[in-house]
Amino acid sequence: MNLILLSPDDLEAEGFARVRDPRRLAHLHQVHRARRGDRLTLGIEGGRIGRGELLSLDDQEARFAIEHLEQLPPPALPVHLVLALPRPRMLARSLEHATALGVKHITLLHSRRVEKSYWQSPELADDKIRHHLVLGLEQARDTCLPEVSLAKGFRPFVEDILPGLLETQRGLVAHPGMPDACPRGVTAPTLLLVGPEGGFIDWEIAKLLAAGCEGIHLGPRILRVETAVTALLVRLF
Amino acid sequence: MNLILLSPDDLEAEGFARVRDPRRLAHLHQVHRARRGDRLTLGIEGGRIGRGELLSLDDQEARFAIEHLEQLPPPALPVHLVLALPRPRMLARSLEHATALGVKHITLLHSRRVEKSYWQSPELADDKIRHHLVLGLEQARDTCLPEVSLAKGFRPFVEDILPGLLETQRGLVAHPGMPDACPRGVTAPTLLLVGPEGGFIDWEIAKLLAAGCEGIHLGPRILRVETAVTALLVRLF
Repeated sequence: MNLILLSPDDLEAEGFARVRDPRRLAHLHQVHRARRGDRLTLGIEGGRIGRGELLSLDDQEARFAIEHLEQLPPPALPVHLVLALPRPRMLARSLEHATALGVKHITLLHSRRVEKSYWQSPELADDKIRHHLVLGLEQARDTCLPEVSLAKGFRPFVEDILPGLLETQRGLVAHPGMPDACPRGVTAPTLLLVGPEGGFIDWEIAKLLAAGCEGIHLGPRILRVETAVTALLVRLF
Repeated sequence: MNLILLSPDDLEAEGFARVRDPRRLAHLHQVHRARRGDRLTLGIEGGRIGRGELLSLDDQEARFAIEHLEQLPPPALPVHLVLALPRPRMLARSLEHATALGVKHITLLHSRRVEKSYWQSPELADDKIRHHLVLGLEQARDTCLPEVSLAKGFRPFVEDILPGLLETQRGLVAHPGMPDACPRGVTAPTLLLVGPEGGFIDWEIAKLLAAGCEGIHLGPRILRVETAVTALLVRLF
């Protein structure tokens, strides 16, 4: 927790905030070993970053006086990440990594090799997804939550949604065996599609290429989804 | 397990192998749903990659006839990774990620912000380290195990070992706030130093720079060690 992210619920009267959830209180006690008078890094959800003087801390709540809310959050990556829904534990880590790296638009996509049961996972509940996004923001000292959408059908996504997305973005689909290596130093808005473990099936790749996406690869090594997501984002931008 | 890595213990008479450990047997049964006659990707530890015909599979062992051992493992990265010893769970994942990405030389280093208790972790036992390296190789379809060494004192490492390493390698220390961004597309042999959570302390950075390392940064976002390791390796090479 390199930043205490204050949601609207945490804010009190002008210039004061109160943190009451057990996770953050435990972190303040055990990791920060925070004491009254300490100044910690705070950020307002969707807003600026500053410092907070810890006015009080007990097992119920931490109260802060907010100071110097002047710093902007770090820049976002110009990317919309479309990720074939990973298995639940991998999903949690992928959301955290992508958020920490600055992704602001994430779509979780169905694909043939996504097990249908993954769509029933409790990890897809709004509060669980939000939890992993917040962990990513706290890690990277960012304040702007990504938007996460679900695309539970591959064909409707490709036929009805993808064409609109590609009007303003370059589409790249990462898949082993594609002819071109992942480009570096991209600054243009990019739609990045990453398949499931085992990859997109041939029909899916053909549909994505036909829709105007370019196929790219990351070399001969097969990476876990969470590693591949980090690798692609870092290589691209 | 995108490759079944055969250690010397797994090899039988010329052209045959036998896998007996519960982890790989369970994977063959449950994930591969392998059946007699299936052809799976095999690799010889330190050697080439080919296919194996599954001759038999039960709860005790899997027997393979090895075929077409012709493919070389994917190229290694020209890097020696010196990583401040992370906490045990993060160590496991960092070893797996680094191995999957092609690192062949890893040194785990003490530093002021490494908790001394981490050096007593069972995760540092030879067989535990080997386990995580093997998982990384199996993931990336590689056969060459990295060498892992432990440097339990920062000063002895910097004063006695580092100068020799820098004779043939460019030293880069990744640290927030360094003036230069992480370079891209490096092909020269590189010694990459990554600090602990919380970073190297100022004195350590000063010693590393004085020894001839260059300081580099990855931008304003603070990343978890495992994410930072992946990000640095992918950005550099």
